Amino acid sequence: MPSPVDPTENKRKNRGVVMPIGGAEDKVSDRAILSRFVGICGGDYAVISVIPTASELPDTGDRYLKVFTELGVKRVHIIGVTTRTDAEREDYLAALDDSTGIFFTGGNQLRLSTILGGTEMATRVRRLNARGVHVAGTSAGAAFVSEHMIAFGREGATPHAGQVTLSPGLGLSNRVIVDQHFRERDRLGRLLTALAYSPFAAGVGLDEDTAAIIDNNNMLEVVGNGGITVVDVSDLEYSGMANAAEGEVVELVGVRLHVLAHGARYDLNGRRAIASAMK
Amino acid sequence: MPSPVDPTENKRKNRGVVMPIGGAEDKVSDRAILSRFVGICGGDYAVISVIPTASELPDTGDRYLKVFTELGVKRVHIIGVTTRTDAEREDYLAALDDSTGIFFTGGNQLRLSTILGGTEMATRVRRLNARGVHVAGTSAGAAFVSEHMIAFGREGATPHAGQVTLSPGLGLSNRVIVDQHFRERDRLGRLLTALAYSPFAAGVGLDEDTAAIIDNNNMLEVVGNGGITVVDVSDLEYSGMANAAEGEVVELVGVRLHVLAHGARYDLNGRRAIASAMK
Repeated sequence: MPSPVDPTENKRKNRGVVMPIGGAEDKVSDRAILSRFVGICGGDYAVISVIPTASELPDTGDRYLKVFTELGVKRVHIIGVTTRTDAEREDYLAALDDSTGIFFTGGNQLRLSTILGGTEMATRVRRLNARGVHVAGTSAGAAFVSEHMIAFGREGATPHAGQVTLSPGLGLSNRVIVDQHFRERDRLGRLLTALAYSPFAAGVGLDEDTAAIIDNNNMLEVVGNGGITVVDVSDLEYSGMANAAEGEVVELVGVRLHVLAHGARYDLNGRRAIASAMK
Repeated sequence: MPSPVDPTENKRKNRGVVMPIGGAEDKVSDRAILSRFVGICGGDYAVISVIPTASELPDTGDRYLKVFTELGVKRVHIIGVTTRTDAEREDYLAALDDSTGIFFTGGNQLRLSTILGGTEMATRVRRLNARGVHVAGTSAGAAFVSEHMIAFGREGATPHAGQVTLSPGLGLSNRVIVDQHFRERDRLGRLLTALAYSPFAAGVGLDEDTAAIIDNNNMLEVVGNGGITVVDVSDLEYSGMANAAEGEVVELVGVRLHVLAHGARYDLNGRRAIASAMK
């Protein structure tokens, strides 16, 4: 049976990039990741909305205002949403409509899902991204971009039942499940656990100061000083999640894993990795 | 800003129904739910594929073969998938292509997500439903139909952090999160907890021997002998999930709740309930 024509195909072709960042991205020296995001959003012509909702610190928005301004962005909107009512404010929605890029800061990803989930702002960000507005998020903001989000979990390299809690995320992509601070917080086990529930997405484990730029053809590019661990479960033969009791190891047979650095690419459609030296 | 034209609109108009059933549906006397499903699938002309993958009992498929045959269905396919490799079998996929209805039995929903997630069979069921094939599931099969699935949890009426574990499901609908055996197993708390992560879907709590028929316009109809509890969080003012520690109560402000019986309807687009006596 041939594949049917996907009616969203034309829309996807114009989608903006989705750019999860592993947290602790450099903000003072080379700022490779943030300046790359500014470049994608139009450089001098970029208009960036910063959504600091994940953070409970009052100066998070201003901190990114300063960095983006130093990187040459002339117009930065701080979208200071702290309640679900804020997420319906027309002035904030108008600022998003005016933007070429949207940036979610770090903090707690459950603040993002509980405050923004189901609101007009979440709908608007999805629509704008589908129409070409670029969306980046760091740390909690990175976790939030996908349809299935890691809310929290425990560290360690092997997957255990109950090690991770999933929540609905923003839903910009259902091709990936993102984890951040990946090497620094020893999170391979919790990413494997997340994938073991239903092995259809690719796991993307982002080290700090490292980002994945996912373009409108689902090609992922690695940027930054750390590594990205891609966990491919497309040929998984067995997941033991249905049989593992709380705290027990979850058996997995047939995981493919790639570790990629700056300049490498990964095709999320064809599930093919191209290391930076292979180009 | 007006809503953009949804490019999937035409496809959705032809979607088959999605019919989660709360478990323990009558199989010997009036069989109201199963005979209704047979009727929707074409009655005498129905061709039904039964997927007993959730169950570890060897006779689950044959049990439904018997019931559907007694209800007048002339062709029933048993899709005996027990491994991820089975879920790529061409003969099984051809049987699905031949069907007017697909039925997921009960058991453990994590068997469905771990064995079918990411396989050709999961993709095929989504495509066939989008083209008009009707899909029902009982108990574990009901949990599995939505994009975000309740994998397991603990009983009780009030929501507590850590009370429920979500997993990616089959993805036939992102409008609902389904729970089953709802009254019998005291599951309001875990459904509220599931919705508290990101309050965008409607919660549908299905009592036993009760089903929700969700049509291609996202109108839900109640069928059967128990109730359906619809939890509407579209006007939720506050979810405390980001602040609740493991085991603590999750605060929720602004939940709307409806209890509906046979013949009632709920509009998942407009979030409006019509009790059976209001028609």
